[in-house]
Parts: sequence; C-alpha cells; structure tokens
Amino acid sequence: MTADDEVPIYDPEILKKFHLGERHETLKQDESLCVRPLYMSDYGRGFLELLGELTQVGNISEEQFQEQFNLMKNSHGTYYCTVIIDTIKDRVVGASTLLMERKFIRGCAWRARLEDVVVSPDYRGKQLGKCIVEILTNLGKALGAYKMTLDCNDKMLTFYNQLGYAKEPGNANVLSIRFPAPTLEPKL
Amino acid sequence: MTADDEVPIYDPEILKKFHLGERHETLKQDESLCVRPLYMSDYGRGFLELLGELTQVGNISEEQFQEQFNLMKNSHGTYYCTVIIDTIKDRVVGASTLLMERKFIRGCAWRARLEDVVVSPDYRGKQLGKCIVEILTNLGKALGAYKMTLDCNDKMLTFYNQLGYAKEPGNANVLSIRFPAPTLEPKL
Repeated sequence: MTADDEVPIYDPEILKKFHLGERHETLKQDESLCVRPLYMSDYGRGFLELLGELTQVGNISEEQFQEQFNLMKNSHGTYYCTVIIDTIKDRVVGASTLLMERKFIRGCAWRARLEDVVVSPDYRGKQLGKCIVEILTNLGKALGAYKMTLDCNDKMLTFYNQLGYAKEPGNANVLSIRFPAPTLEPKL
Repeated sequence: MTADDEVPIYDPEILKKFHLGERHETLKQDESLCVRPLYMSDYGRGFLELLGELTQVGNISEEQFQEQFNLMKNSHGTYYCTVIIDTIKDRVVGASTLLMERKFIRGCAWRARLEDVVVSPDYRGKQLGKCIVEILTNLGKALGAYKMTLDCNDKMLTFYNQLGYAKEPGNANVLSIRFPAPTLEPKL
C-alpha cells in the first residue's frame, strides 16, 4: 500500500464539521464501526464486492478504479462517496454516494441526490442503512442544497418515508430509457 | 466582450461528432436557429431570463455566473449545458442540461440525466422542446451511458412518453426533501 492509497475522495473534516444527526452521534460511540469518505485503498476492503449486492459491477481493475476515483475527486465537490467500515475486520460494510449537482437556477444552487445505498447482508438489522441515509441527507443540507432527491422502487418507499423522504403530489415520476451495450468511457 | 466570453462549457465538436437524431438534422437546415453548448457570453443573450420560465433564478451577477460556469466546465465531462440560439435576434430561446454522473457500478459506468428543459414562450409550437430532448438523449447514449432518466410531473408524462421515456414498473418514484433557506455555496 502506498501513501496515495489512503487518499480520501473528499475532505474527511467535512463529516466532523457538521452535526449529521443522532444516528451518526451514536455510531461515533461504536469503536468497531466508522463512517468516513471512500479511500482509494478501499478497493482492497471489498468496496466493489459490496456494490455487487446492489447491481452488476463487473470486473474493474485497480487501475480503472483509481482513475474513476481521481476523476470524481477532482470534480469540484460533486461526489461524496461515503462508507461504513468494520474497523476490526477492516472491510467496507455499508456505502452510499451523495451527488451534489451544480445548477444555474435558484441563485446558482446545489441540488443533492442520494445514490447507491447498500449495506452488507451480514450487517443488516443494525440500522446501518438508515444511518448512512441520515448522514448523507444532513450533509446535503449542510452543504447548501435546496432539495435532495432519490429514485426509489415501490418496496423501499416505507424505508425512505421513515427518513423524511416523500413523493411530491403530482411531481414524483422517474422516467427512463435504457441503452444497450454501453461503453465504459465516453467515445472521445 | 472578451475572447474568454466565447468559451463553450463543453467541446462543440461533440455535437458534430455523433448522429443525434432526425430533429437535429432538420434543425441544422434552419439558418435562423442553432444548437450549441452554452457559452460564457450567453449571460448577455438571456440565458438566465429563459431559465426564469422554469423556476426562480434570482439575481445572479455576471461574475457569479462565470464562476459557476467554470466549475461546471472543469468537472471532467459532467455538465453538458446546451442551448438553442435564435441567430438573428442573438438570443437563447431554448435550453437543457445533460448531466453525466460517474459510477463505480457496471464497470465504472455513466448514468445520464436530463435537467432543466425550457423553451421560450415565443418559440413554442416549433417542437424545439422535443428537439433538445432528442439531441441530449442521443448524446447521453453516444457518450456511453447505460441509462438516462428524468424527473417528470404528471402533466409532462405524455410529452416524454412520445420521446421514448417511460416509467419502469415498480421502480419509478422520485422521493424528495426540501431544505429551507439554502445557502448559495457550501459552507466550507
């Protein structure tokens, strides 16, 4: 492991600077678990295997991972990939990303989005999902977003309702198009 | 106007490189209209006033606009803000943004999103809305996204259905939280 491997994808002080909810405060008391930004070295802590619980991930080399990591890190406060670490096993056991989108509307505002929430099956029942959602929601607010949204299937509605997320009447549809055979990088 | 003012927010060659649909081909024949990336100088062509048709924009100084523009431009292929120009009046008459989000899932994939679609009331009935949606949808595909999504209110469902966007059964909910009194920049 090189020094570079310990690079966080965003400044860890951000998680200390703000009050991010009671669940975060409680988690801080737990010495066996830790919430922090994704590190480059988390490639070796099972981060991609954990994402595999969510959807297909495919074979990503360490070099590919590092390249994507650096592009996200250098995108001016857009990507807040955050993980929960089992500090005893030194493994990633939960993860989600807060995506901060720059807008021109609303005085050059930020819109926040919650993406790719996942908890290891071995750690379910510990409310780690609620914990990471609450932390990143409070972070989106603290960073100045005017709203935060997420896309949700019908089965997860109750879970997110409990955490304060709701459909806006008459304005709650996600429409999509799926493209076949995507390439991995823009063809430029 | 300085040379800097003509800076495009992304490489204009991208719009020439790909076939972006029949509506784009037809529009290219129209000498009075032009589709291109947002320029920094579009502050003076009514870009923000046009966004005001969509939602509140507030008072944004030219300096604020340029700062946000540069941060978006330098975010490694994330923001494709695109405008339709009336070349005779030299005004922005339509606009939308393709947001390309970097993922680790699916082989470090791109997810595309369509944001802030707006056409000047004086230019409605010319299918400029369909035109810009089709162009940016095809651009999202050409740049390698595995899917492209948009948030939609009930009134716009038919419009987007006609353009190929659909609800995925059981997986088409947008949930949101609105935050009071947002700040304009992260409090860091």
